[in-house]
Amino acid sequence: MDLTSFITSFGTSFVIFVVLVLIFTALSRKPSNAMVYYPNPISKGLDPFEGGKRTKSPIGWIREAFSASEADVIAAGGVDAAVYLVFLSTVLGILVFSGVLLLPALLPIAGTDDALRLASRNNKTAGNYSEIEKLAMGNVQGKSKRLWAFMLGVYWVSIVTYYILWKSYKHVSNLRATAKSNPKPRPEDFTILVRDVPSLTSDQSIKDRVDSYFRRLHPDTFYRSMVVTDQKEANKIYNSLEGYKKKLAHAEAVFAESKAASKPEGARPTMRTGFLGLVGSKVDTINHCNEKIKELVPKLDAEQKISLQDKQQRAALIFFNSRVAAAAAAQTIHAQMIDTWTVLEAPDPRAVIWPNLSMRLYMRQIRQAIVYTVVFLTVVFYMIPIAFISAFTTLANLERLAPFLKKVVEQPELRTILEAYLPQIILIIFLALLPALLMFLSKSEGIASESHAMRAAAGKYFYFVVFNVFIGFTISGTLWNSLKSILNHPKGIVSLLASSLPGNATFFLTFVALKFFVGYGLELSRLVPLIIFHLKKKFLCKTEEEIKEAWAPGDIGFATRVPNDMLIVTIVLCYSVIAPLIIPFGAIYFGLGWLVAKNQMLRVYIPNYESNGRMWPHMHTRIIAALIVYQITMFGFMLLKEFYYAPFLLVLVPISLIYSIITKNRFYKSFAVTPLEVAAGELKEIPNMEAIYAAYIPKCLKPEKLEDVELFEDAQSHATSRATSF
Amino acid sequence: MDLTSFITSFGTSFVIFVVLVLIFTALSRKPSNAMVYYPNPISKGLDPFEGGKRTKSPIGWIREAFSASEADVIAAGGVDAAVYLVFLSTVLGILVFSGVLLLPALLPIAGTDDALRLASRNNKTAGNYSEIEKLAMGNVQGKSKRLWAFMLGVYWVSIVTYYILWKSYKHVSNLRATAKSNPKPRPEDFTILVRDVPSLTSDQSIKDRVDSYFRRLHPDTFYRSMVVTDQKEANKIYNSLEGYKKKLAHAEAVFAESKAASKPEGARPTMRTGFLGLVGSKVDTINHCNEKIKELVPKLDAEQKISLQDKQQRAALIFFNSRVAAAAAAQTIHAQMIDTWTVLEAPDPRAVIWPNLSMRLYMRQIRQAIVYTVVFLTVVFYMIPIAFISAFTTLANLERLAPFLKKVVEQPELRTILEAYLPQIILIIFLALLPALLMFLSKSEGIASESHAMRAAAGKYFYFVVFNVFIGFTISGTLWNSLKSILNHPKGIVSLLASSLPGNATFFLTFVALKFFVGYGLELSRLVPLIIFHLKKKFLCKTEEEIKEAWAPGDIGFATRVPNDMLIVTIVLCYSVIAPLIIPFGAIYFGLGWLVAKNQMLRVYIPNYESNGRMWPHMHTRIIAALIVYQITMFGFMLLKEFYYAPFLLVLVPISLIYSIITKNRFYKSFAVTPLEVAAGELKEIPNMEAIYAAYIPKCLKPEKLEDVELFEDAQSHATSRATSF
Repeated sequence: MDLTSFITSFGTSFVIFVVLVLIFTALSRKPSNAMVYYPNPISKGLDPFEGGKRTKSPIGWIREAFSASEADVIAAGGVDAAVYLVFLSTVLGILVFSGVLLLPALLPIAGTDDALRLASRNNKTAGNYSEIEKLAMGNVQGKSKRLWAFMLGVYWVSIVTYYILWKSYKHVSNLRATAKSNPKPRPEDFTILVRDVPSLTSDQSIKDRVDSYFRRLHPDTFYRSMVVTDQKEANKIYNSLEGYKKKLAHAEAVFAESKAASKPEGARPTMRTGFLGLVGSKVDTINHCNEKIKELVPKLDAEQKISLQDKQQRAALIFFNSRVAAAAAAQTIHAQMIDTWTVLEAPDPRAVIWPNLSMRLYMRQIRQAIVYTVVFLTVVFYMIPIAFISAFTTLANLERLAPFLKKVVEQPELRTILEAYLPQIILIIFLALLPALLMFLSKSEGIASESHAMRAAAGKYFYFVVFNVFIGFTISGTLWNSLKSILNHPKGIVSLLASSLPGNATFFLTFVALKFFVGYGLELSRLVPLIIFHLKKKFLCKTEEEIKEAWAPGDIGFATRVPNDMLIVTIVLCYSVIAPLIIPFGAIYFGLGWLVAKNQMLRVYIPNYESNGRMWPHMHTRIIAALIVYQITMFGFMLLKEFYYAPFLLVLVPISLIYSIITKNRFYKSFAVTPLEVAAGELKEIPNMEAIYAAYIPKCLKPEKLEDVELFEDAQSHATSRATSF
Repeated sequence: MDLTSFITSFGTSFVIFVVLVLIFTALSRKPSNAMVYYPNPISKGLDPFEGGKRTKSPIGWIREAFSASEADVIAAGGVDAAVYLVFLSTVLGILVFSGVLLLPALLPIAGTDDALRLASRNNKTAGNYSEIEKLAMGNVQGKSKRLWAFMLGVYWVSIVTYYILWKSYKHVSNLRATAKSNPKPRPEDFTILVRDVPSLTSDQSIKDRVDSYFRRLHPDTFYRSMVVTDQKEANKIYNSLEGYKKKLAHAEAVFAESKAASKPEGARPTMRTGFLGLVGSKVDTINHCNEKIKELVPKLDAEQKISLQDKQQRAALIFFNSRVAAAAAAQTIHAQMIDTWTVLEAPDPRAVIWPNLSMRLYMRQIRQAIVYTVVFLTVVFYMIPIAFISAFTTLANLERLAPFLKKVVEQPELRTILEAYLPQIILIIFLALLPALLMFLSKSEGIASESHAMRAAAGKYFYFVVFNVFIGFTISGTLWNSLKSILNHPKGIVSLLASSLPGNATFFLTFVALKFFVGYGLELSRLVPLIIFHLKKKFLCKTEEEIKEAWAPGDIGFATRVPNDMLIVTIVLCYSVIAPLIIPFGAIYFGLGWLVAKNQMLRVYIPNYESNGRMWPHMHTRIIAALIVYQITMFGFMLLKEFYYAPFLLVLVPISLIYSIITKNRFYKSFAVTPLEVAAGELKEIPNMEAIYAAYIPKCLKPEKLEDVELFEDAQSHATSRATSF
């Protein structure tokens, strides 16, 4: 890629970005769009415009993002949001510190050499090289003493990374400790989750068994237990009840609206009872819903009792009357046989994956093994099933299977396009479905909480992204070929290929630029949610409830966001010395990312649950992994350049590993469990144990009023011997 | 080795064994030898002959060993002794069950084939093979269908091993749980060890810091703390004081004896004050010792105070008022920064290695890394320094360095012997010093207790023994050569070499037989301790105290015993199918070993400390490791036999790994820490906390009377700000 085409591509992206930012500035001032651009403060009952202060200037959002403190972010988006910002600023810091030394040092050293010119003179086919490529390591001649500077560059980047990561880990560890020793009592801090309750010896119920066991081992601190029950049936009834309630409210609003118009008697809305409301007999919606609700309420009541008494599972939540007691209990082995009474800290009540709780230990391990195998195969061989499906979904086959598509497909222009792009379309569909597939796989492992499943899915996505995009493009493209030619030893080809790795740098430069300009522009302007919200509001929503659902911004979605950022980290680190020009682009990516993310955290996204920065050790480990990939790549690249001192780079790999072990020793465990010191933080108020208990009652089993919590526990306790027959 | 020489060697060993057993039977009946053959009951104040019941029959000891229950063994030798017996009987069980099927099945299959006869006919040089070798797999022709039987044999041995190991692990886990939930309170169950106390913030003493920290985190269960102090100086004074006390008692006994003889005034003993009592001025021993004692007592008192107040170290023992509280505290993370306030279960007071307690975490890790490297180099390259030393310690060099040896060395006969055997002598000295070296290295790692250091040393010794003896003899001798010839593909040599591995079996058969007959004979008859005891008693001992020291039997020494047994396990397992005749020999080794060890546990050895079977997981893991070595060896051997179904054996390796993970998941953690369930066992008496605290006061700092425990703690507490200046 030559300079002009790079500038064109870069310029286009930049223009798109500027346009999107202008759109954002214009649209976000309109009060009617407030629900799209300020859902977070609105959901907390705050006025998003605070007396118009926010609307004054087009760069107001930038000023606000800079002035908001970490405490503001935590208040708006929780510790997880703050930790994500720390992640972005950490990488930014690494890139800025690296660039400050590398750019002024390495660019002139590379630019004043002339390996490319010599190569193009000797070899007619390699005549094309751009000005950008002249500023990269590819322009340095093999065996040159100038390579020392690049080698020292790798050391500099490594040292900067160690230093900044250490500071960040410490900072995040303190953030987590502060959150965990919060003066406001939170339910998850008083609760542990126990799984694998062993078989019953006598005819006592699981609830009694759990109670007596924990009361004996924690006589002074045990408060209560809640046995997990099979709530599938109850949940089904509850959901259908809620559905009818919503439908009723909608129908009543439609009816009221129709009355307000020309006809005072109004038009009673009707519906069909069959599949998706498309088939079946036509009924009056309001009457139908009322009937259904009347029918379902007692059914739910009955099912709740059955669930609580007869469907007790071998897992329970245990509540303690102090945080220290819960923290200690969550990290101690309770049973002599370790595969029974396994304990862990209870997740945020909102994040519990109920159906997984009762899964037995060995089942979880078997599933984990299977899931890991599936993921490994998916990452490495995902092209095979896609090629396979592509081969079968030829147009001819499609026509045979879905005759109604025949007319569409037989138009000649469309046919050409489809025939050309069908495999790519399938690939795109696969990539779009991948995050959901990985989340599904992670949950199948039997993980207890959404936040943990999210981390597991993010890990899998990271491997996929790095393996396929980075390894796929770079290593397979050049290094493999280079190795092959090394084996045959023709000097000319080696030096030619050694210069093609920096060539790839230009590709990644464009990739990074496109990604941040267009990606962040779309993210900030929220064009898609804006359009969807306005369409829904205009045509579908009738009740307040429905409008609220229409603007609900949802979670930030770390599961795909973090691995994508990690890909950029890996790319930028790996090319930081080969083509130092990538550093400013990386810095802009993470700087702009930090700015946009902070804005979105403060104004838009509402977290579904809180894991108190549990994600950080994963980010940390993966940055180190990227660093090690970088160090090894550089060693290989130096070898290609026939630099005899290249093995000095290999010293860095054990140093990185030792660094990783030291940080793990020092920080990790306080992320896995809560240290007593942290749990012993002073509470501002006496914890309301009733409320803590009630927080964990699943929606579909929740009694109407809080006093009924007693009833809830009673129902579980009276299961007695009947439960044993299950 | 042919049949006759094997029988000769076997017969000789057997005769030696019978003679030693007869000697044992004869000598152990004499009451004057009771201290050598029954020190364990005597030390407990029991009459070893219990009304002559034990002396009646020469096989009385065998009957007694069979009739004694596990509880008897635990009462006499502790849980560790019982676990060692379980280890022996587990291996015995594996061998018996394996043999029951393998011997009748495989011996005829091997014996009726005739690969060796054919080989000796085709190849003149390979003409020697014994009858024993005909009963081994070497006699089966390559590619033969008979090899299926041997392959199934490997499966059978593996399944038997899995089954018996599972049962044993469960049994030992229960043994440990019973010991840990002992109704009699033991000091180590109420105590935890905390290391890496962080730097002081203000000018409080370490004692105050520790107290306030643990009182805050365990307000209801914290009893007291004891800060570890630097007691090197106090220990030195204490030891020299004790030395003078002993010398005084000895001198007084000598003086009294001399009086009873002809001269009524007696002869006052004298001594020299210089090095080893060999040089210096002559003084009256009784007066000199009295003077020294008078001088040292106040010196010790002063040093005790200094040690307690001014030499406080960054480690402490924390006492809790309940076992559950201590068990929970020992397995919870206390500090947010994991490299501070690290906790672990307190070791048996007798097993504490005081100087190691105050070593910092990173120092321990660095030392561990260094020790591992040293051990790795020792295991793999130990021959190099020995060859080096041998080269330098030629006779000529010796004569030059130690001229007084000249006369000895110049005798022609001696010279010949020395010149021939000097390298071997150095090797023997090295091997004799190795256990002590490994123990020293293990302690240098900063391990907190003798029992842990013992396990670490045993592990190192195991690697050494297996690597050098087993791998050295078998694999390097035959498999390496075989691989070389495979590369060159001459069929004749391959089949010749494939039959040489079973040839090694005969060597190991003799090795095992010699080991158990001579080794166990010597162990049982205790000839060396007997002679030493009688010599000491006659010529050296004057006081009761000295006689007691002379017969003290010491510890059983698991650190070298277990790895040596493990070597036999590895050998017998690996040859179990190749040469099934080794199985009965292995069975005799472990059967006889069980018998002799049980006798020695009940009557002789007195354990220095108790680790409640903490050793078992190591034994378990190493048996599995031996099994995996076996499975891989068999795969290689089947390949040599050109058996195309050999890869079926590789299935066993992942199965063994999974089995090992499952057992670890299920059992291991309750060996690493104490499960709450176990610690919650009922106590028969209210624990005397003062006594528990006093049990951990080091001898050299111990106050004279128990009431002074208060004073001891006071002394620590009054260190105040002075301590910070250190």
